[in-house]
Amino acid sequence: MAETTQQDKTAKQLRLLEQALDSGRLGPVKRLVNTLSAAEIGNLLESLPSAKRQVVWGLVDAEDDGEVLVHVGEDVREDLLRAMDTDEIVAAAESLDIDDLADLFEDLPDTVVDEVLKSMDRENRERLEQMLTYDEDTAGRLMNPDVVTVRADVTVDVVLRYLRLRGELPEATDHLYVVSRRRQYQGRLSLAQLLTADPAVAVNRIMDADQPAIDAETEVAEVAQRFANYDWLSAPVVDENNVLLGHITIDDVVDIIRDQAEHQALGAAGLDEEEDLFAPVPRTTKRRAVWLGINLLTAFLASWVIGNFENVLKQVVACAVLMPIVASMGGVAGTQVQTLMIRAMALGQVSASNAMHLLRKEMLVALANGILWALTVGGVALLIYRDAWLALAFGAAMVLNLLAAAFTGVFLPLALRRVGIDPALAGGVLLTTVTDCCGFATFLGLSTVLLVR
Amino acid sequence: MAETTQQDKTAKQLRLLEQALDSGRLGPVKRLVNTLSAAEIGNLLESLPSAKRQVVWGLVDAEDDGEVLVHVGEDVREDLLRAMDTDEIVAAAESLDIDDLADLFEDLPDTVVDEVLKSMDRENRERLEQMLTYDEDTAGRLMNPDVVTVRADVTVDVVLRYLRLRGELPEATDHLYVVSRRRQYQGRLSLAQLLTADPAVAVNRIMDADQPAIDAETEVAEVAQRFANYDWLSAPVVDENNVLLGHITIDDVVDIIRDQAEHQALGAAGLDEEEDLFAPVPRTTKRRAVWLGINLLTAFLASWVIGNFENVLKQVVACAVLMPIVASMGGVAGTQVQTLMIRAMALGQVSASNAMHLLRKEMLVALANGILWALTVGGVALLIYRDAWLALAFGAAMVLNLLAAAFTGVFLPLALRRVGIDPALAGGVLLTTVTDCCGFATFLGLSTVLLVR
Repeated sequence: MAETTQQDKTAKQLRLLEQALDSGRLGPVKRLVNTLSAAEIGNLLESLPSAKRQVVWGLVDAEDDGEVLVHVGEDVREDLLRAMDTDEIVAAAESLDIDDLADLFEDLPDTVVDEVLKSMDRENRERLEQMLTYDEDTAGRLMNPDVVTVRADVTVDVVLRYLRLRGELPEATDHLYVVSRRRQYQGRLSLAQLLTADPAVAVNRIMDADQPAIDAETEVAEVAQRFANYDWLSAPVVDENNVLLGHITIDDVVDIIRDQAEHQALGAAGLDEEEDLFAPVPRTTKRRAVWLGINLLTAFLASWVIGNFENVLKQVVACAVLMPIVASMGGVAGTQVQTLMIRAMALGQVSASNAMHLLRKEMLVALANGILWALTVGGVALLIYRDAWLALAFGAAMVLNLLAAAFTGVFLPLALRRVGIDPALAGGVLLTTVTDCCGFATFLGLSTVLLVR
Repeated sequence: MAETTQQDKTAKQLRLLEQALDSGRLGPVKRLVNTLSAAEIGNLLESLPSAKRQVVWGLVDAEDDGEVLVHVGEDVREDLLRAMDTDEIVAAAESLDIDDLADLFEDLPDTVVDEVLKSMDRENRERLEQMLTYDEDTAGRLMNPDVVTVRADVTVDVVLRYLRLRGELPEATDHLYVVSRRRQYQGRLSLAQLLTADPAVAVNRIMDADQPAIDAETEVAEVAQRFANYDWLSAPVVDENNVLLGHITIDDVVDIIRDQAEHQALGAAGLDEEEDLFAPVPRTTKRRAVWLGINLLTAFLASWVIGNFENVLKQVVACAVLMPIVASMGGVAGTQVQTLMIRAMALGQVSASNAMHLLRKEMLVALANGILWALTVGGVALLIYRDAWLALAFGAAMVLNLLAAAFTGVFLPLALRRVGIDPALAGGVLLTTVTDCCGFATFLGLSTVLLVR
């Protein structure tokens, strides 16, 4: 991402903040921090080592505490909560909207949860408790239950008068929801329609009855996909009896998409998006070690493949010099194919019939590129080592490994999904294991046949 | 990403479509296609090989053509446009909103652009021409110019009567914008406020004058960042004289974020997000070859490093067997650090002072993990080869390469950004080049010192 003004601004705030902290003058720090939005404060807190973070956290206005907690990753949130006593946490939680509160509840101590629930009015408590019956990462947990409902048989004029009496509407309200006596969802009415419709007309004459509702148990990834496919800006959420529970607006979907993108970028390197940049060394070491350990097993596998060809390695040292090139090119070519496959699969663009078509296309591309680069590397090997058989083994192994890479790139993600593993997370390691092993085996195998007498 | 219902649905439609196409019965295909949304049709077209794609494209209702063209990648769009004559393209373009049209204009032939401009009314033509004066990827091109403006000194009642007279509001309208006689932006008024405010009060008494405007020349990445930092749902766009040009709504930001995520995921493998999955083999081969060529250069560099140690490779064949393990572990450890750095940099979370802190932390983590895995691999080497000096060289190289990987992972992305290269795109290749070379050099170098007599 190119450097942008917001990045510069955050980086500059961070520098100022650290300078002020280092000088021990907390007055300027407090003033600086409290001019920022909750998201910006969260961002800054994530950028500070734990000791400085606690100092700055103590200077944040108490009324912003809740919002800031919503805007930081889980690990940093735990770090911040540790410094607060129960009363402070309860006060922070009380300042939040219900949907944000539901988001935070998982990380709060039970005593705090009880306190907060006790302090809420009955309606909100029931709403919150209902949201918490749904799994994390479902529509029922993501939605905002704070919606305005009207009945289908009243006139627009009645609705207008009701709204004026009611006063302020909940944040992000773009529609009123039309429900039955039993609160079953029937349709919706946009604020724009209310403002332009004939006041004498009945709600059911102008309401939008075509907008489908989302089942509260729908996974958030699916919710995001539907918003994208149908260009929705908001959608109602209902339970299994079509009773309206709340609505999801497109700003919630932004968060899902951002989280998904982070999850994939970090997950591919064996990292967790909730991780604190400044987590203590022992904790970080432990977390990273797992991924390194998995990789070590795959590296030993490749190494074992090489070990089977000690004979040719002893006789032709050039094989040891050139073999990483074959493996590396296969890894890159395979990664390209697999990356495209994973993206197409996420969009539902891969079926049994076109998978075969894709495979054929990718094998042809691999063959063409294989021949191109085989001639190149074969030529180079011939120039350096003046050995036609070595050049032949090198070039042929290149073609074979690129073909294997294309095949693996198409089928590995399909196979992983079949067994329920996310190919975006595990695919990279597995693919390079295949291309490494295959690259070493073909090159050293061909060399054994052609060069060992 | 886990398999979801929408994915299943798309994959199922694709299967049905291909079956119907293969059987040659176009009636069912036409019926199936025209029950879908524009985004879904676009998705399906992207999933079909070019010949079938053209058949299906011919069956899409003409009135949906424009929307579908907006929803496909550039390469597929070119493919579809090639099959249309000028009249059809003009008709498709005329059915679009101005902001979608501006999006499409880059890819349309000049004759079509002229036709479309001629067919528009003066106001819309001027708006569109103004949008086109701004660069792609700026707020001025992203915005929707179709906004409703009111004056500050009128009462809410006047606004309400005006809206009722006006009829329908533009799509995605959530605010009216308050402007001066010269159309300079002064503030905004949400539809919710209009519905709940006292009709007798003047607009300037209740308008939100705090919402900042976005300069039309702001880059879209920056726009997305501001929406995230301040939790905006929409924002006005102004020119350099504070004249209101239009507004950006959060659904536009969703598209930016989606594009950024795709750009990074694909870019890291040297791919282009506009690429057609079913592009002809020669074109795909050429595009992929570039990235393979770059990688080949780096692979030859690593190979050259190995070539400097032919002496030890000849004498101790175990070195050739074990050396890829050292290189591979360095690559994984470095990728982890670099991935976190790139993410923190994108959020503005890295400053000069905390970069040193991060480096210290990462070097400690690398040291701890280095020792852990050095003991493991050293032990394994000792068991297999019964050579303490080899085990020592192997373990020590592991520690050194993990340290080098941590150092590179912290500083490489900073250095790349300094010289204006996106670390998310180029970082991976460069990092593994460093860790490969360093891994081979330390292990083979140490082996030379310890094992060659």
